[in-house]
Amino acid sequence: MNAEDLPKNVTIFEVGPRDGLQNESEFIPTDKKIEFINKLTDAGCRRIEVTSFVHPKWVPQMKDAKEVFSRINKKEGVVYNALIPNIRGLELAIDAGLKEVVTIMSSSESHNKKNINMSVDESLREIEEINKKAATFGVKVRSYIATSFGCPIEGYIDPEKVADIGAALESYGSYEISLGDTTGMANPMSAYSIPKLVRSKLKKSSLAVHYHRFNGMELANNLASLQAGITIFDGAAGGLGGCPYAPGATGNTATEIMVEMFERMGISTGIDIEKIKDCGSFAKSLCTLCHI
Amino acid sequence: MNAEDLPKNVTIFEVGPRDGLQNESEFIPTDKKIEFINKLTDAGCRRIEVTSFVHPKWVPQMKDAKEVFSRINKKEGVVYNALIPNIRGLELAIDAGLKEVVTIMSSSESHNKKNINMSVDESLREIEEINKKAATFGVKVRSYIATSFGCPIEGYIDPEKVADIGAALESYGSYEISLGDTTGMANPMSAYSIPKLVRSKLKKSSLAVHYHRFNGMELANNLASLQAGITIFDGAAGGLGGCPYAPGATGNTATEIMVEMFERMGISTGIDIEKIKDCGSFAKSLCTLCHI
Repeated sequence: MNAEDLPKNVTIFEVGPRDGLQNESEFIPTDKKIEFINKLTDAGCRRIEVTSFVHPKWVPQMKDAKEVFSRINKKEGVVYNALIPNIRGLELAIDAGLKEVVTIMSSSESHNKKNINMSVDESLREIEEINKKAATFGVKVRSYIATSFGCPIEGYIDPEKVADIGAALESYGSYEISLGDTTGMANPMSAYSIPKLVRSKLKKSSLAVHYHRFNGMELANNLASLQAGITIFDGAAGGLGGCPYAPGATGNTATEIMVEMFERMGISTGIDIEKIKDCGSFAKSLCTLCHI
Repeated sequence: MNAEDLPKNVTIFEVGPRDGLQNESEFIPTDKKIEFINKLTDAGCRRIEVTSFVHPKWVPQMKDAKEVFSRINKKEGVVYNALIPNIRGLELAIDAGLKEVVTIMSSSESHNKKNINMSVDESLREIEEINKKAATFGVKVRSYIATSFGCPIEGYIDPEKVADIGAALESYGSYEISLGDTTGMANPMSAYSIPKLVRSKLKKSSLAVHYHRFNGMELANNLASLQAGITIFDGAAGGLGGCPYAPGATGNTATEIMVEMFERMGISTGIDIEKIKDCGSFAKSLCTLCHI
């Protein structure tokens, strides 16, 4: 943990408006979502996942995706992207004018089947198609690999399998891979070794980590990944997220705490601590799940 | 963070019955305190700070110190000790039959004055006397240095000063020094560098760390200290502690979370995870401050 071995700057990828709010059972007014995203922009966030283009039958909370994206204040140099579950989502995102989308699949067969009703191979083929189509529209693709640190159904996931999926996603064109610890199963040892392994298999795509909360251990996990050379960290203002219908699913790493940890360490995030704390409070005010 | 660079075993020093409960405004029945301590013994804790021999005018919650110590189940190989503020406390502890006591002073002049109404030099002289007297009774002395990672009044504390105090305490006979992050001001960088510096100035005394909660960052701080070579970690079951009359004072690192982190990393604590979680729940049931 010598300062000279650590980066001077890191990037926060803010997922609060999407991963944080998607499971809220009561619809959050579109104006509130827009206000939240504008506050994040104002706090200095430069990469924000603002919504999800998914069928409203599955995620009714995100039914206002197009309106949210069209009405937020878009600041020069800030990337606003959205999760898409499939080609249809990509088409909606392109139609709405997005320049970047985010795909998701799980490294666990059982979890992938349960979550998006596809096998791992089917998901890979879908994301290959998404990349092909996105490229023709000049749209960039970021890709999550969920359950990278363990699966609530299968338990242990071979890190080599996660690395192989990462390499496949890179070969399709995904410019960044984010390793998701979907249900808070990582520990500082795996949070160090797994990103290190996956990164060693990537030629040009960048690698991020996406930890869910486990009583504060998520901060230690982010620290361990920093030491493994990771410089891109997913977080949700207020630590939002989690689903009451998915036992074991907890909220995301709270962006404001992660920012404070890095800034105290002398590592710049480009984010204003007081403003991101305000974003956290605002997010919690929207949310009924945030105490999970 | 390679497994071969980290210890295979660590020791938890449990402070819940003292540091966790001392600020509770409602008196906790002696039987409940005893039940808590017995549960900690049963969970596998091998070092437990069970009470404080302090004038009941200052800490009424600990007025049953002698009774608590006399009635707990004392397991072979487990050390039960108590905080003492001064020579008078030592006399009471010796009278009660303790074989180990714990002293406290702050590295910050202002905080030491406010907390125990002595200058740093006066505290050092007092602890020297305590060590002398304790030695004649065969009683071991452990010593806290509070505000080792920053002071809520003075801010920055020169780590060299902390190291000098540690060396002085060692020279008086304290067999172990514990660096306290009294109000959660540490970060992983200081949690690595300060213990490393202090340890380099100690010839034989062991060194422990004592982090208070800061939204989960305490886990990252404990991890950083582990990487700095520390193997003794103070915690309070349930994350108890904190005082409503001392703004900024938060609870201690929750023992059960720290145990889970280390055990997930393959580092043995000797403590049963399920049983220590039960201790955490029990502690919270005693406590009105535990949500601070």
